[in-house]
Amino acid sequence: MSGIASLADLRERLANLPDGDEGAAAAIAERQSRLTKPQGSLGRLEELVAWLGRWQGRETPSLDEVSVLVFAGNHGVVARGVSAYPASVTAQMVANFERGGAAINQICKSVGAKLRVIPLKLDAPTGDFTEKQAMSEAEFIEAVAAGCDAVPASADLLCLGEMGIGNTTAAAAVAAALFGGGGAHWAGRGTGVDDHGLARKQAVIDKALARHAAVLADPLSAAAALGGRELAAILGAALAARRRRVPVVLDGFVSTVAAAPLMKLRAGALDHVLAGHVSAEAGHRILLGELGLKPLLDLDMRLGEASGAAVAVLVLRAALACHTGMATFAGAGVSDKPS
Amino acid sequence: MSGIASLADLRERLANLPDGDEGAAAAIAERQSRLTKPQGSLGRLEELVAWLGRWQGRETPSLDEVSVLVFAGNHGVVARGVSAYPASVTAQMVANFERGGAAINQICKSVGAKLRVIPLKLDAPTGDFTEKQAMSEAEFIEAVAAGCDAVPASADLLCLGEMGIGNTTAAAAVAAALFGGGGAHWAGRGTGVDDHGLARKQAVIDKALARHAAVLADPLSAAAALGGRELAAILGAALAARRRRVPVVLDGFVSTVAAAPLMKLRAGALDHVLAGHVSAEAGHRILLGELGLKPLLDLDMRLGEASGAAVAVLVLRAALACHTGMATFAGAGVSDKPS
Repeated sequence: MSGIASLADLRERLANLPDGDEGAAAAIAERQSRLTKPQGSLGRLEELVAWLGRWQGRETPSLDEVSVLVFAGNHGVVARGVSAYPASVTAQMVANFERGGAAINQICKSVGAKLRVIPLKLDAPTGDFTEKQAMSEAEFIEAVAAGCDAVPASADLLCLGEMGIGNTTAAAAVAAALFGGGGAHWAGRGTGVDDHGLARKQAVIDKALARHAAVLADPLSAAAALGGRELAAILGAALAARRRRVPVVLDGFVSTVAAAPLMKLRAGALDHVLAGHVSAEAGHRILLGELGLKPLLDLDMRLGEASGAAVAVLVLRAALACHTGMATFAGAGVSDKPS
Repeated sequence: MSGIASLADLRERLANLPDGDEGAAAAIAERQSRLTKPQGSLGRLEELVAWLGRWQGRETPSLDEVSVLVFAGNHGVVARGVSAYPASVTAQMVANFERGGAAINQICKSVGAKLRVIPLKLDAPTGDFTEKQAMSEAEFIEAVAAGCDAVPASADLLCLGEMGIGNTTAAAAVAAALFGGGGAHWAGRGTGVDDHGLARKQAVIDKALARHAAVLADPLSAAAALGGRELAAILGAALAARRRRVPVVLDGFVSTVAAAPLMKLRAGALDHVLAGHVSAEAGHRILLGELGLKPLLDLDMRLGEASGAAVAVLVLRAALACHTGMATFAGAGVSDKPS
């Protein structure tokens, strides 16, 4: 178990983060320079292998055990008309995940990843943050700990995603608290609200930012006041993965917002994290820029469920296959000398 | 066999192209609207499935047989110092492909694709186009026909790529002839020339454009005068695939230039073609813009060998897995009604 029982425990964990294995990364780069291709010509595929090796602490990274965690939560703010779907869809989709009928089930099969779905008190939505805290400190910490505990004891790679009707509103509010800008800057259409719905989202976010202004300077307090259980769990899982040096692929806007407080509290806290894609949800590209994360894919996806992160795993597999399987110039008798 | 024995045969083939199956594409879009996800939320994954179905003429597309063709050629213009590698590397890399040691071998294994490498008279490089035609009309047509004939009798998808020391110079010259702009606009660093090498490439291209100006108005004549056998073969393969309604994924700058004369001669001739990625080679992004092709991936790759196209197949597989495997709203008991 995580042993995280308070904000102080969480801050203490964050103060003690392992660095990556630069020796492994350097050995990987050296091997890349001997493979039968012009230097650097595999582009990001080369960077990805070095990143895997740096965090796995291995000169030959592995992707044998790829774990996809999808956290689900419900949101009191849905009562404000911020989503195109009713809150009951969260539990319906969790059931759909469990029966294997959702997009993420198919992508996990396609990519050879193990999916685990973790519903977090779906029958007890967070508070409507236009009126009160979304979560108390205790509720927030409980969700963070659930995320920590969900990280498998052994994993080569962890993909983090979410499901929660209303959670793009919560995420936009947290993003605004962390990085400035109001509802108009961060709100997007989520599952597909119309112009009126979008205006409501923006107003709801602005109202919440005003109401909770006194506590928003602290990133963790902002995450408790405005976020959701699934966001808190993603934060916990990203932190636990870092402490075990498991590389993490984040999914879209909500997942990235969820992990962002770690970076706000400590520079470099997300060095073990790859942005699997940039979502079509309006705020994601802005947020990735704020965090200095360069997304791997840009496929106009906006589904959540870790779907973008899981598609990115395919690229990681191709990158690793090249690294481990290619011949060297010397081995293949190919000239590596400029003419 | 292709039966293409002259430029007139080639033009006749190009005048008789089948359209896509819009009924299949519409049926796919209709199914997408019933799957358990917000409308359009899988973004380009949804478009990709419709594209596959449109050209395969099937409501349920297949990716059982994915064929990757890599054409290789040598270039007389290498004598002008336009490449970082000697011309002998083309044959060395063909041998490396055949032994399974190159990047494309690993990616094909990773993606479940069948690789075929077709060397085209490597011991008889094209003419140095600063002094003469790269190919006579007969040589050009022979290479086009080789490309046509290489397309397998049955394939669900065809990826087209190339290998040829010096061919980014040839490709840049062809691009300049087709779309205007000189050497400075189209030349990139290829396998990695330094600033002096890049300046040489630009000057070589400008010299060739001046020398062959009289014939460059016709796209096929430009491809013969400035191109290469592997480019001509890609043109032939892309045309043959269209005539059999096999969807095609193009690789990088050279492959895209190779197919571009088809579009210059007939609007819509590349509707069955997907740009698998945008390469780091300087001219590729410009060229894709000229052709109205939106690349699927942007991974800073610049290797050729069909490597970017083959990585894109992974995304196609994920897209198809979602389409065929997901539950519908009705089947899964998930609410598809706005709240």
